Amino acid sequence: MDENKPLILVVNDDGITAPGIKALISFVENFGEVIVVAPDKAQSGMGHAITMNTPLRLNKFNDIEGVEAYSCSGTPVDCVKFGTKVIAKDRKFDLVVSGINHGLNSSINVIYSGTMAAALEGSVEGAPSVGFSIDNHSLEADFSACETIVKTIVKFLLEMSKEKKVCLNVNIPNLPLDEIKGIRVCRQAKAYWDERLEERKDPFGADYYWLTGDFIYLDEGEDTDIWALRNNYVSVVPTQYDLTDYKAITTLKYANGFK
Amino acid sequence: MDENKPLILVVNDDGITAPGIKALISFVENFGEVIVVAPDKAQSGMGHAITMNTPLRLNKFNDIEGVEAYSCSGTPVDCVKFGTKVIAKDRKFDLVVSGINHGLNSSINVIYSGTMAAALEGSVEGAPSVGFSIDNHSLEADFSACETIVKTIVKFLLEMSKEKKVCLNVNIPNLPLDEIKGIRVCRQAKAYWDERLEERKDPFGADYYWLTGDFIYLDEGEDTDIWALRNNYVSVVPTQYDLTDYKAITTLKYANGFK
Repeated sequence: MDENKPLILVVNDDGITAPGIKALISFVENFGEVIVVAPDKAQSGMGHAITMNTPLRLNKFNDIEGVEAYSCSGTPVDCVKFGTKVIAKDRKFDLVVSGINHGLNSSINVIYSGTMAAALEGSVEGAPSVGFSIDNHSLEADFSACETIVKTIVKFLLEMSKEKKVCLNVNIPNLPLDEIKGIRVCRQAKAYWDERLEERKDPFGADYYWLTGDFIYLDEGEDTDIWALRNNYVSVVPTQYDLTDYKAITTLKYANGFK
Repeated sequence: MDENKPLILVVNDDGITAPGIKALISFVENFGEVIVVAPDKAQSGMGHAITMNTPLRLNKFNDIEGVEAYSCSGTPVDCVKFGTKVIAKDRKFDLVVSGINHGLNSSINVIYSGTMAAALEGSVEGAPSVGFSIDNHSLEADFSACETIVKTIVKFLLEMSKEKKVCLNVNIPNLPLDEIKGIRVCRQAKAYWDERLEERKDPFGADYYWLTGDFIYLDEGEDTDIWALRNNYVSVVPTQYDLTDYKAITTLKYANGFK
């Protein structure tokens, strides 16, 4: 253990066996001492869920060579808490990296995303953090173009002044590196999911539903993550967890007897 | 079905049998046509989780008199999606109310809260929305002071212009009504949880952990929800789901070759 090497936590939401986290580990392992804590099963769409009503398990995971790794029965955010409180203990992470998610977490997806919730939780714990996602849901996704992008952003975050710590939502087009036009700093695009709950019958005649839907894009801006991705840029949205709608505070004050 | 009556969705995260949702239904049922869709079990700390990897069940719930109610096997956010897409279908909700949560969702708790995620999802679906929480975790909590507060805020939201739609995070002190000093519009206080993962041994000798911790309050401001609650006010934080850190966009642009 080299005390001068940056301490890096790697987490994801697709689970510890996903190809995306293996790619991410291989891209960051030379930047410092890497600790991996990832869910023992896929935890997509878990948002900022934490496990309060059931106990949690943590197991050593020996299938990733040269790296201290653990699988956790909980959510992506639980994994960050285990990394911080149980594994690192008195040491502080210099960086929390999450992903690489199999599928985009741009726009409204950020609020449902376990990948980005883990990155934000890193930020709550005081570490600079970043979630990486690629525009390809397949387990066969080709992460080779991600290497340069991940390394550029990780180097930037490790060199950045600690006071300015940020949490970045990085989404990467599914393209060869020479077709990617650059890294673009953006805001979260306005959009929503027009869901369907697809109704089926189980073998016993009872109804069940699958949640599915279409992504509805509402934003004309050229400063959004969706615009960047559609124009072959990597999108970087700095992200935070103060949900206050500051504009509405002014509107609401003194309304209807409020103070 | 009266087409002129407001259509109100009631949801929570403590589950359909929790006393808090029964109290909330009784406070809002005279304001319009009420539809209830709530989880079939406690879903505290589920944040903005949605159910993607398993199918969902929806069942008619007949134990609440005079109200159309359903229990859902999914998360609080799934419940809002069922209410909107499966139950209301072509009709739009005029209001989504969530709670009353047994325990506060002020400050950092908003990011872990299923109650507030459901309210925010109502906002994603285009409805004014509000999550109510009381400073009492007990199932025996006394909700009588909440009645006036819930009715005041629900009336305000139903009369508010639709364009100005807001999502409110309302936290209520555990006090008799005459000791509550008023309703105060606030921002989300800066704070975090200093977690412990309490280690235990199961009967078979294997380790397991319970997630617990202390709330660490970092904010000196008198304009926060925590200040309001500690001074016997109801706190109202207008809340939104654009997580962009706008200040950091300026800092990051043109840094390290970013565009």
